[in-house]
Amino acid sequence: MSGNDANNLQQSMTKIRAVQYGCGPIGCSVAKLAAQQPDIEFVGAIDTDTHLSGKDLGKTSGLKKKLNIPISSNAKDILCQTKPDLVFLSTVSSARLIRPQVEHCLNAGANVISTCEELCYPYDTMPSLASELDSMAKMHNCTLLATGVNPGFLMDIWPLVMTGVCQQIDQVKVVRFQDASPRRKPFQQKIGVGCTLKEFKQRVSSGSIRHVGLAESMAMIADGIGWKLEHITESIEPVIATTQVSTDYFTVEPGQVAGVRQVTKGCMAGKKVITLEFEAAVGANQPYDAVYIHGIPDMEVVIKGGIHGDIATAAIIVNSIHRVMDAPAGLITMKDLPLISAHRTGNHG
Amino acid sequence: MSGNDANNLQQSMTKIRAVQYGCGPIGCSVAKLAAQQPDIEFVGAIDTDTHLSGKDLGKTSGLKKKLNIPISSNAKDILCQTKPDLVFLSTVSSARLIRPQVEHCLNAGANVISTCEELCYPYDTMPSLASELDSMAKMHNCTLLATGVNPGFLMDIWPLVMTGVCQQIDQVKVVRFQDASPRRKPFQQKIGVGCTLKEFKQRVSSGSIRHVGLAESMAMIADGIGWKLEHITESIEPVIATTQVSTDYFTVEPGQVAGVRQVTKGCMAGKKVITLEFEAAVGANQPYDAVYIHGIPDMEVVIKGGIHGDIATAAIIVNSIHRVMDAPAGLITMKDLPLISAHRTGNHG
Repeated sequence: MSGNDANNLQQSMTKIRAVQYGCGPIGCSVAKLAAQQPDIEFVGAIDTDTHLSGKDLGKTSGLKKKLNIPISSNAKDILCQTKPDLVFLSTVSSARLIRPQVEHCLNAGANVISTCEELCYPYDTMPSLASELDSMAKMHNCTLLATGVNPGFLMDIWPLVMTGVCQQIDQVKVVRFQDASPRRKPFQQKIGVGCTLKEFKQRVSSGSIRHVGLAESMAMIADGIGWKLEHITESIEPVIATTQVSTDYFTVEPGQVAGVRQVTKGCMAGKKVITLEFEAAVGANQPYDAVYIHGIPDMEVVIKGGIHGDIATAAIIVNSIHRVMDAPAGLITMKDLPLISAHRTGNHG
Repeated sequence: MSGNDANNLQQSMTKIRAVQYGCGPIGCSVAKLAAQQPDIEFVGAIDTDTHLSGKDLGKTSGLKKKLNIPISSNAKDILCQTKPDLVFLSTVSSARLIRPQVEHCLNAGANVISTCEELCYPYDTMPSLASELDSMAKMHNCTLLATGVNPGFLMDIWPLVMTGVCQQIDQVKVVRFQDASPRRKPFQQKIGVGCTLKEFKQRVSSGSIRHVGLAESMAMIADGIGWKLEHITESIEPVIATTQVSTDYFTVEPGQVAGVRQVTKGCMAGKKVITLEFEAAVGANQPYDAVYIHGIPDMEVVIKGGIHGDIATAAIIVNSIHRVMDAPAGLITMKDLPLISAHRTGNHG
């Protein structure tokens, strides 16, 4: 292609006008990656934290250049003024808390891709909210998807994809065993890094230590295989540090909490058929992600070293842009979309 | 669900009326698995080999019961008489040779799922044939998909799915290193098991030793990532037995050919960006399948022991039935379809 052709293509390409809603670590990594795509043009940025108000989205998200998009705390104004094609919504994990934010986006006629864990597959966990959001999205002729590395890929879509070459499935087990040391501060806080055992138990009771999404992944796998689960259990236990571990944000002494081990089991006809083991701790040795299938054939699939969650979440959000823009209106999930690959030309063929 | 409910569901379920076209080892394993699905009803079976004529599809495919479907060598008659909803077409690897068979199926108004390797992604390798078949399928309001373990999954869809969590892709390498000992006889023949070195070279020259599908997988990966490859190379070499190896069909002496090693490389801007290594030999130790991605992040994903190709091909054909029945008319590929999982209730939600 000649330089002129490239220029013409660049000019003729209708850019997707996007707003970043939520400028925490994940929102920033999404914005940083999205801003580098030739067919994405940011037209606004929102964060409820007024400390960020007026700061440039480009600089804040770690880009080397300014985007000349000041972050605003007034979501409604930004959405009404810019009428974006697409909102990247990275604010909270709770579907109930994110509902009004989604509503503002849909009212402005925007498609939404969110990192909200509970929205990734809300049909079993909160069916009426799922139905309301689906109707709302359809009314505005918009598509709403929530995704991320987990839920959204590692403990649901990835194992389901692997079952595609199986004749029979008796049991599925997914293990995510990760070293939390390189993860963002809110993630380390969420898994209890540096707590005493007593604090950990209190925070588990109050619900502030918990990886959100295992119930959603469990439901997605069960529906994907066609299983009606009768009984689901979940346990949350601390991982205790045996040596001192330091991260960019915490120093953990031996005996303190290094992270969390959370296991969810789904049973059918009295037998355990799905097990999801999520362990995240600072200083964890030899992290990995794995899918184990008992069936015909048996299968053991391992990602050596595991996948860095924050990199992967930003990636899968940006990689799903064109699938979402092309999808029918309504609340959709990763289970409904065609293959999402790392496509990097803005021309998704 | 009560017994009555189950009976009612069974009765009210509209079954998919299917024909098995091609009753070799792969066709039989497809028919055997498909016949066990509650929503599939076989109405015909075809094979050009008149030795099979009149034999029952059930018994021939290894089911314990008769299906009361005699195999016929008259494809046109069977297709016209039965007007099936779906044909499982497992005859040849060549898109040109399978074309008239596809045409007969489409003329009868049938959707087609084929194991024809060259049809899995024919847009680069035979664009005019792809376009013709697409038009023909659309004219008849039918959907045509070709898939299988490879091409169709292991060396194209699987690596593409894994790129979905990557921010940047610099290189993709896929290795399928398999023990051919438990595979079907035609497969062992196709990879040259038991040949002398001279025979192997002659058969490579005449094209009778070659795994078909690497070019198609290469094109699917490149399109999925958005790469325009400038240069593609392919090498085919023998794997020589160092000890005696016996299978159900052959005894291979030391110095004879145990299998084939076939490597395809795709280059862009002077750099190798895609490598597909396919090695299949009898007596191969520690088989595995692997995806290696260089990018952000790097990724190494391994299926320990590898996937048994014949089991997997029948599985993915049957697992794709509902996706194909729901897909728009035309020639489609695995890249276009939503997630294919091992769904086993006939209700694909």
